[in-house]
Amino acid sequence: MDYGMYYFEHVTPYETLVRRMERVLASGRTRFQDFFIFESKGFGKVLILDKDVQSTERDEYIYHETLVHPPMLAHPEPKSVLIVGGGEGATLREVLRHPSVERVVMVDIDDQLVEMAKTLLPEWHQGAFEDPRAEVVYDDARKWLETHDDTFDVIIIDLTDPVGEHNPARMLYTVEFYSLVKSRLNPGGVMGMQAGMIMLTHHKAHPVIHRTVREVFRYTRSYKNHIPGFFLDFGFILASESFDPAALSEGTIEARIRERNLPLKHLTAPYLESLFVLPKDLTEAIENETLVSTDANPFYLTPEGEARQAPYPQE
Amino acid sequence: MDYGMYYFEHVTPYETLVRRMERVLASGRTRFQDFFIFESKGFGKVLILDKDVQSTERDEYIYHETLVHPPMLAHPEPKSVLIVGGGEGATLREVLRHPSVERVVMVDIDDQLVEMAKTLLPEWHQGAFEDPRAEVVYDDARKWLETHDDTFDVIIIDLTDPVGEHNPARMLYTVEFYSLVKSRLNPGGVMGMQAGMIMLTHHKAHPVIHRTVREVFRYTRSYKNHIPGFFLDFGFILASESFDPAALSEGTIEARIRERNLPLKHLTAPYLESLFVLPKDLTEAIENETLVSTDANPFYLTPEGEARQAPYPQE
Amino acid sequence: MDYGMYYFEHVTPYETLVRRMERVLASGRTRFQDFFIFESKGFGKVLILDKDVQSTERDEYIYHETLVHPPMLAHPEPKSVLIVGGGEGATLREVLRHPSVERVVMVDIDDQLVEMAKTLLPEWHQGAFEDPRAEVVYDDARKWLETHDDTFDVIIIDLTDPVGEHNPARMLYTVEFYSLVKSRLNPGGVMGMQAGMIMLTHHKAHPVIHRTVREVFRYTRSYKNHIPGFFLDFGFILASESFDPAALSEGTIEARIRERNLPLKHLTAPYLESLFVLPKDLTEAIENETLVSTDANPFYLTPEGEARQAPYPQE
Amino acid sequence: MDYGMYYFEHVTPYETLVRRMERVLASGRTRFQDFFIFESKGFGKVLILDKDVQSTERDEYIYHETLVHPPMLAHPEPKSVLIVGGGEGATLREVLRHPSVERVVMVDIDDQLVEMAKTLLPEWHQGAFEDPRAEVVYDDARKWLETHDDTFDVIIIDLTDPVGEHNPARMLYTVEFYSLVKSRLNPGGVMGMQAGMIMLTHHKAHPVIHRTVREVFRYTRSYKNHIPGFFLDFGFILASESFDPAALSEGTIEARIRERNLPLKHLTAPYLESLFVLPKDLTEAIENETLVSTDANPFYLTPEGEARQAPYPQE
Repeated sequence: MDYGMYYFEHVTPYETLVRRMERVLASGRTRFQDFFIFESKGFGKVLILDKDVQSTERDEYIYHETLVHPPMLAHPEPKSVLIVGGGEGATLREVLRHPSVERVVMVDIDDQLVEMAKTLLPEWHQGAFEDPRAEVVYDDARKWLETHDDTFDVIIIDLTDPVGEHNPARMLYTVEFYSLVKSRLNPGGVMGMQAGMIMLTHHKAHPVIHRTVREVFRYTRSYKNHIPGFFLDFGFILASESFDPAALSEGTIEARIRERNLPLKHLTAPYLESLFVLPKDLTEAIENETLVSTDANPFYLTPEGEARQAPYPQE
Repeated sequence: MDYGMYYFEHVTPYETLVRRMERVLASGRTRFQDFFIFESKGFGKVLILDKDVQSTERDEYIYHETLVHPPMLAHPEPKSVLIVGGGEGATLREVLRHPSVERVVMVDIDDQLVEMAKTLLPEWHQGAFEDPRAEVVYDDARKWLETHDDTFDVIIIDLTDPVGEHNPARMLYTVEFYSLVKSRLNPGGVMGMQAGMIMLTHHKAHPVIHRTVREVFRYTRSYKNHIPGFFLDFGFILASESFDPAALSEGTIEARIRERNLPLKHLTAPYLESLFVLPKDLTEAIENETLVSTDANPFYLTPEGEARQAPYPQE
Repeated sequence: MDYGMYYFEHVTPYETLVRRMERVLASGRTRFQDFFIFESKGFGKVLILDKDVQSTERDEYIYHETLVHPPMLAHPEPKSVLIVGGGEGATLREVLRHPSVERVVMVDIDDQLVEMAKTLLPEWHQGAFEDPRAEVVYDDARKWLETHDDTFDVIIIDLTDPVGEHNPARMLYTVEFYSLVKSRLNPGGVMGMQAGMIMLTHHKAHPVIHRTVREVFRYTRSYKNHIPGFFLDFGFILASESFDPAALSEGTIEARIRERNLPLKHLTAPYLESLFVLPKDLTEAIENETLVSTDANPFYLTPEGEARQAPYPQE
Repeated sequence: MDYGMYYFEHVTPYETLVRRMERVLASGRTRFQDFFIFESKGFGKVLILDKDVQSTERDEYIYHETLVHPPMLAHPEPKSVLIVGGGEGATLREVLRHPSVERVVMVDIDDQLVEMAKTLLPEWHQGAFEDPRAEVVYDDARKWLETHDDTFDVIIIDLTDPVGEHNPARMLYTVEFYSLVKSRLNPGGVMGMQAGMIMLTHHKAHPVIHRTVREVFRYTRSYKNHIPGFFLDFGFILASESFDPAALSEGTIEARIRERNLPLKHLTAPYLESLFVLPKDLTEAIENETLVSTDANPFYLTPEGEARQAPYPQE
């Protein structure tokens, strides 16, 4: 490691990733979070929100294809889509690639972050915010869902993890929240979500989220993929009341990819299917999990990756 | 990061993993390499050889199940097995779990490393060196193969990557070496190997190894798995002259696991199968690779992860 | 920075020194503290106690000449010397170089540390523990002083800083302790001590110690020197009831060095004198200090280098 | 160390200082060098040029008082002053505090750096560039001296160290360059300069510079001071043909400080005098040095701090 600027990120409490920064492109704070963008040699632009790496220019396609296309392909003809979170616009970009889509509502609490992304992160949104089918709403996603009875074919949840007792995101990881999401799905609808990092020594986030979603939906399916820029595997969940979203045949997925003319760089039909096959240790961790996160007792993650349950602190 | 001891490992030229060391358990040098063992909180004992993390106590089962069982399960009744490398004994341990095995020859150049492992790394070998079916030979694997005409049902190659122009391991990654391995396989035999890290920004090792093995064997199949203690995905290869080792049905694998009574902690039959399904970007990198490593022009990896070809330097 | 082992030491709350370790020589814990010894390329062996660098092989002569010879040379004929602390034996070694010395009592609480030093740190003690004039007592220094009425010509205090509210060393930095030390000095006696790091952004330890010593002794003189292995200036204090220990003429010091035949590598008479001349900003920090550390309200240092006063916590 | 941005600076080849950066204020490249400014908690703004810390807001007064006032006070009535280098303007600021000064020429090769400093580093220059007595010339200092026969009472050299074989600063550290400087001093004139870090394990820069200057001037005097923001001692040199600039009495210095009404924060007359007293090990290193840097064979520093001599490479 030569002289120069580095970014320290604690990937576990005992292992720290030190990334060389070539240039600092932007840093600041919105009303809701710190943001920070730097240029790296291996991964291009790196976006940090509240200290954690969110996305890198070079591999964001892997994350966003993995988050968006499994739920979108699980639906035979998604017309209306809700994105919960999704600030920099790449989730929106991938959703809009499905030609049946007529309306996408993206509800993100942080207007300043979205405005920043429009200017500084064109590699992510690639103009998606200009698409006439896209509506961006700046609001707390839970409040918006409670006060709007619009329903959707697909709802995609792209939130940061509920790290820390005072993290307001905790209320977006409860049985009550997922019930609300379910009530806004059309018949045959499907929910997809980012569902925590998967790590031998830190299995807790994903099993708890899975266990909580399973309280609400008839079908809950976990899948995982390796995200190189995070140096970790991440977990994802598909859930539906109507059908098993992991049970589509490879031929069906293949056909939908072809019909929709999706320009995929990472996923293929067989690879997408393979992501739902989990190793034994992870399956057991999910099956053995008993913690269900509720509004009265929502879970949060400690910096050590432990899951704890406690009432959300009143101010 | 508190005061104390840390281990720096460059996972890419621009990203460094800093691991907290609780205690240093051993460090030294054999005739062939530096070794270093420390205790970490998340991963238990960590074994370093020549600067790179080789294995951690907490997740070595993932690596060793992934390396050993796919080739062993591909064979209907493996009786004789050769392990090339495999110093700390966990590869041997997993091989010996297959009850049909009558003889395992492990050829490792570094007797001092194996002796050290016997004493300091019991969590890895778990007594495997005492098994009467195991023969440990201290020799250069290539020389041993050239001078012995023993043949085997399964040959497992567990070597470090050929990083650096002067690395003698370069001569164990050539067409000629794989031809030699093939000539020591019984009819119906299969070769399994560790085949380099898989990384978006460093795809080179695996594609080159795949391309080289494919010159020699009729069937060459790549698979990958995430190794948490490395914070990376690793590539593996199965190769055979007789049959496609990735084409076994899930039912067959399932039956063999059950018949052999394997105490697997990570692999299941479906998960093992899913590992052979590769994402599009990696498949393309493998397909587009043209570099074939030969004795006259063996490849090596630069510290930046580039693959280069050049004659092995004469002293 | 290449692959390998590094030691992290926070020299300030915002600046960390990362030292490359070539080899770990020993690590462990006595009843009182953690110890850790490693080999470095620039400084040779490095001794860490409870996380902070205590001494390095290459520059310990600078620290120990600076601690020992100013008080010893201030006395015309030191026969009896008490060392408070001084575990690894280099303070003892330097004291014994003065030929008038007939008896040195070294009181260190940590017998295991001294035993370890005898074996592993011969570069420090250089056989001093074998000198018939040396008596090593394993006891709490304050308790020993309270229960023994032996008196001395020179008392040298070589303790670690009182960092942390629960640090028992806090009771060795109070008015009452210095009064006890004074009562054990012979007429014409002098006390010398290590008195905290001197740093622009962390002046607090030294001024508070100076202010406290000044409550007790008629003459209190600060001096400082740069200790390369710490990458910092350190403060020291001479104190006496009988005479101004910083007022000796250069000629007198020069003559004593010559008569005693001291094999100095760093100090000269003029350089020793120059160390007592302090810059304006440091002089002002000392003069403006009002905190006096007492048994009822002993001071301690926060990790940020702030000095706080609070009763010592009862268990 | 928490999440976030850090700056790595190798203070020796084996010890690295990691500084927490609160904010990046500017980064870029002039025609001659990289610059980089960040905000730190302990030291305020930190200025980096070509990777090395040049100055910090919080302690620059220590460096600049130590560089400027010894030569200025050595002269009874400095009217004309030349500054070689001195980009950010703090050297100029301190020179202008001497009321006898009528003209200061500052020759710095890097106009873009000076322009950047005018805007972003007002804490350093504090308006000095606006003083009518100041003339800033953008040129190579050696070329300017060769083509101008202006003479000065005081010449202050404030350059970066000649690290690296291709460093053009090498030609500003030779016998021929110092002869040129001497020829531009008025009778009774004095040269002052920054002369390399002083470190137990890296004594080489300062002894070589001292030895080279001594070839040219009748009187050459080294002094040193601790610069907290560098975590190191730095060496300085005064040289004169007419008188011994280290031989002024404390009373004379005291009187000149008072008459000139200098608002010193760090220096006092006795402290300034004390800086010229060097420890024995450093004195010996200077006395034993034999390397003389010449135009034909100019010296340079390796990254390991070794001094080497070799012809300056022709392009």
